[in-house]
Amino acid sequence: MEMDGKILKVDLSSGSSKTIEVEEEILKQYIGGAGLAARLLFDYIKPGMDPFSPSNVIAFMTGPFTGTRVPSGSRYAIAGISARGIWGESTSGGHFGVALKRSGFDGVMITGKAEKPVYLWLHDGEVEIRDASHIWGKDCYETQEMIKKDLGEKGVRVACIGPAGENLVKYACVINDAGRAAGRTGFGTIMGSKNLKAIAAHGDAEIKVADPEKLEEAYNKTMKTNLENPFFHLLSKYGTLGYLDVGYLLSDVPYKYFTETVFPYEAVTQITLMERYSVRSVACYGCPVGCGKVVKYNKRGIEEVDTPEYETVTSLGPLCGNLDLDSLLYINHLCNAYGIDTISMGVSIAFSMYLFEKGVIGENDTGMKLEWGDSDAIIQLVEMTARREGFGDVLAEGVKGIAEKFGVDEEEAAHVKGLEVPMHDPRAFFGQALGYAISGRGACHNRPDWFVFELGQGLPDLGIFPGERFTMEGRVRDFVRYQDFREVYNSLILCNFLMSTPSEVLDLLNAVTGWNFTMDDFVRVGERTVNLKRVINNIMGVTRKDDKLPKIVTKPLTTGSTAGRSPDMEKLLKEYYEARSWDWETGKPRKEKLEELGLGWAVERIYS
Amino acid sequence: MEMDGKILKVDLSSGSSKTIEVEEEILKQYIGGAGLAARLLFDYIKPGMDPFSPSNVIAFMTGPFTGTRVPSGSRYAIAGISARGIWGESTSGGHFGVALKRSGFDGVMITGKAEKPVYLWLHDGEVEIRDASHIWGKDCYETQEMIKKDLGEKGVRVACIGPAGENLVKYACVINDAGRAAGRTGFGTIMGSKNLKAIAAHGDAEIKVADPEKLEEAYNKTMKTNLENPFFHLLSKYGTLGYLDVGYLLSDVPYKYFTETVFPYEAVTQITLMERYSVRSVACYGCPVGCGKVVKYNKRGIEEVDTPEYETVTSLGPLCGNLDLDSLLYINHLCNAYGIDTISMGVSIAFSMYLFEKGVIGENDTGMKLEWGDSDAIIQLVEMTARREGFGDVLAEGVKGIAEKFGVDEEEAAHVKGLEVPMHDPRAFFGQALGYAISGRGACHNRPDWFVFELGQGLPDLGIFPGERFTMEGRVRDFVRYQDFREVYNSLILCNFLMSTPSEVLDLLNAVTGWNFTMDDFVRVGERTVNLKRVINNIMGVTRKDDKLPKIVTKPLTTGSTAGRSPDMEKLLKEYYEARSWDWETGKPRKEKLEELGLGWAVERIYS
Repeated sequence: MEMDGKILKVDLSSGSSKTIEVEEEILKQYIGGAGLAARLLFDYIKPGMDPFSPSNVIAFMTGPFTGTRVPSGSRYAIAGISARGIWGESTSGGHFGVALKRSGFDGVMITGKAEKPVYLWLHDGEVEIRDASHIWGKDCYETQEMIKKDLGEKGVRVACIGPAGENLVKYACVINDAGRAAGRTGFGTIMGSKNLKAIAAHGDAEIKVADPEKLEEAYNKTMKTNLENPFFHLLSKYGTLGYLDVGYLLSDVPYKYFTETVFPYEAVTQITLMERYSVRSVACYGCPVGCGKVVKYNKRGIEEVDTPEYETVTSLGPLCGNLDLDSLLYINHLCNAYGIDTISMGVSIAFSMYLFEKGVIGENDTGMKLEWGDSDAIIQLVEMTARREGFGDVLAEGVKGIAEKFGVDEEEAAHVKGLEVPMHDPRAFFGQALGYAISGRGACHNRPDWFVFELGQGLPDLGIFPGERFTMEGRVRDFVRYQDFREVYNSLILCNFLMSTPSEVLDLLNAVTGWNFTMDDFVRVGERTVNLKRVINNIMGVTRKDDKLPKIVTKPLTTGSTAGRSPDMEKLLKEYYEARSWDWETGKPRKEKLEELGLGWAVERIYS
Repeated sequence: MEMDGKILKVDLSSGSSKTIEVEEEILKQYIGGAGLAARLLFDYIKPGMDPFSPSNVIAFMTGPFTGTRVPSGSRYAIAGISARGIWGESTSGGHFGVALKRSGFDGVMITGKAEKPVYLWLHDGEVEIRDASHIWGKDCYETQEMIKKDLGEKGVRVACIGPAGENLVKYACVINDAGRAAGRTGFGTIMGSKNLKAIAAHGDAEIKVADPEKLEEAYNKTMKTNLENPFFHLLSKYGTLGYLDVGYLLSDVPYKYFTETVFPYEAVTQITLMERYSVRSVACYGCPVGCGKVVKYNKRGIEEVDTPEYETVTSLGPLCGNLDLDSLLYINHLCNAYGIDTISMGVSIAFSMYLFEKGVIGENDTGMKLEWGDSDAIIQLVEMTARREGFGDVLAEGVKGIAEKFGVDEEEAAHVKGLEVPMHDPRAFFGQALGYAISGRGACHNRPDWFVFELGQGLPDLGIFPGERFTMEGRVRDFVRYQDFREVYNSLILCNFLMSTPSEVLDLLNAVTGWNFTMDDFVRVGERTVNLKRVINNIMGVTRKDDKLPKIVTKPLTTGSTAGRSPDMEKLLKEYYEARSWDWETGKPRKEKLEELGLGWAVERIYS
């Protein structure tokens, strides 16, 4: 900012485009990112709409911090009705967000379906829809290179899909800046359904800031805070995989499809990786953390690969019984190349191995043996999934689809609202269990990332402090406040890994925008967008019964530090609904709550 | 073993010595180490006895695992009435324990006082009392070298005191194998009071094992378990200082004399140290962990120094507001050279800084400014303490002595039973708070090391599992069982850092001794020795009122992840007494309990 709210709308069916300007009054209510997208897309969302129909509209968004010197503030977001037919959103780092902003747009809304493969070329406030026929079928690394070559301009950044998106694998992701991923909820699939291979962006639009002096001051203050925070350094030195050692202690790292948490974890830590390989850090635009790591691989004809994140290592590693670290470097690279969400891929494979071990499925179904820890099989399954070949065609449907195909009890299927459960065991942090159950996009470990809160120093600015991981008694209101606070990060598109205090983030926002938000204003944006996204989900058919965790991830284990523990989901959910003012019968936000949040205009869409 | 229970008794006053053999029946009740020492020394302990009188008897002990291939099992223990006038015990690693055992003795009991400085030379089942006048005044590193040169035999190992022990600093320690310390409770002081500069040992006595095949099997099994344990690797790679990062997250690392837990901790981590210095590992005899680290220092004329342990870094670092890692390497080296317990030294200095800041003491008392974080002042204070010069003469009395001298409220003095509180904040783990209050030797973080238990995977063999760190409701019986189990380690002299299961440790014991202990027999040894040591403390005047934590370490903090938390000590203690069958009025074990444990013979000493 100063945000001018310039949003490009492109219809791929007709090839037409126009630019709209969002009023500041709206910006103040939703800020930017996925929050603003929910507002902008709201009117296009119709009950029963097929997410793969041309009429579905998705948005690529920047936020108020994009391109400014606000640390870790230049991610971009993709939002809209996702491949699961409910609200979805996903963010990614790197440099694409800044390129999009500097191309002259705060965001791009995309609808329709191109007749043949295309990519968008955004530059200098203009858009070109360009042929991508020659790129269709290429992997994400090749695609980025080919488009850059095609455009011949320096500094072009590309967000694209790989074969998985083209083949409508349900959890295809969007990849930019080599191997950064907007991983979850399947927007790669939506792009594939629109014949949209990529978006390329570049430009030199000015990045304006309302009060540069105030920003300087806020920047210095928050950097000091960050440098004193243990997570900051953990992430900076070891990347997200550095969490595995900590998480293992707490039995937070699931093994063999959530049935255990005790295993020789040492084989797959970042420390082990750093002992075996030469590793260097890479940072997203303007990020002092630099959690990204690149490894000198020099195997299988590949010189360098991105280090797999904690979620990737765990889902395609221990969750599948696979402790071969070398294989995980390659599997992660493959997923990036094909454009596949690693979490959903790993959980889907682990689920299949679990069913295979139990004899629910056999070689007749899979065409091969599925045995815990068989890393070669995992590699083969990733390739088959990307191409929807053989059993890969089943895996491509995700855990929910697999369970439906084989008639497996839904309590065995580790997903929430169709999104596979990520790699923080809900028995290790009961607040995280609640988060999985109620998060708008399905089982999400980021909104809120309660496990981080519980391990941290608390947020005195918000009057909330960590407690005990198995005790949520009297703490659900704190949980809601934390969720609202974190939800604003989706509008700011601020990275979770910036360890600033709420007041500092508020100061950064006011400095950049020239607004005079109070902390209440700030958190209220979060509450508003949580509720608006809930209304969208209600429109798309979500009710209270969808806010549930399957038993496979909640039933007590017999070993590890969570032995005998199980969250009381019914109780947690009741308290949550009460704190949120959501109706326990219908799962809808109460009218009064919507009106209080300035969402009265949306009431009629769910109350007729 | 096969333990033959050969114990040397030396009277330094008369110069006489003899050897006794302990019956197997006694060994089966107390095993070895500090547990056996409590039984052997019991008859010599008289109410009101001055610990510095010649009649005090202390013991240097080995255990059944010493010199065998049992991993991490070759520490030695020193036990007896400590410098605080109550039961004390301390262990150290390195190779001295094996040398003592191979010299032909399972232990040495020492009484009397030599007319002039002497050292003991144990070899081939014999003892020589040798003149140490020329070594008196030398530091611990010099002393070891001089004695080795004196004896001219290869393989000699020396446990000795430095100037602090000679000058009767209340928390002087015993140093062996360069810089390994039997740190706590002041046995260096007791040695000093006896004019005993050192014990040197060497020999080739056979180390016998009852069932080598069974031992091999037990060894292989337990090594597998260890290699799967996260603490094993944490310690192996980073030493104990590696805990600082974990502990900081939990607000377990105290800052500025226990008044805060939030500070730029990054400055003093092992990672930071490893980035700045070249570090190599050193292991004690037969230890697969190798938690010891040595640093290429090359400053102040010193080529190499031992890495300070977590406790040392924290007590002389953050607890004193000192975040200068370089100074901590030197301060640790100084403490080793002078033979000073780093925990008690750090807490004493931090207490003085706290009193100085509050204006309770001033430059008139100290002769210098005492300001948080002044590392040069800390260096100076360590030197003054070792020599009892100026304010160092006050510091040499420890926190209890300082408080008494300046009339400070006892709730401000961070000690229990005269032993300074170690570096795990009792607000971070309520069970650890209980441990500090009731541990036999005073505030002890090792017996039991509840914070480790709470962070671990539980002990299914004992039917106990970790819970939540602020909740001890219904868990005090588990605490007692864990304490009993860990207490056996004092008899085995097994290092805490071996992460074996209880069953595995039991298997190791049975293989080495040829016994057929059940798990109940095993844990019962712990219960027996906890109670015997309690009886000893009762004889020396300990009552229920001594089982207390001062408010300075329990009152709620306002920041950090323990904000607002405070253990309910009265409740914890009542439950503990009940579970232990200790009398709430007198603080003595009930007669029936003593009889049940085969300690009926000791009843008359506390019930007349």
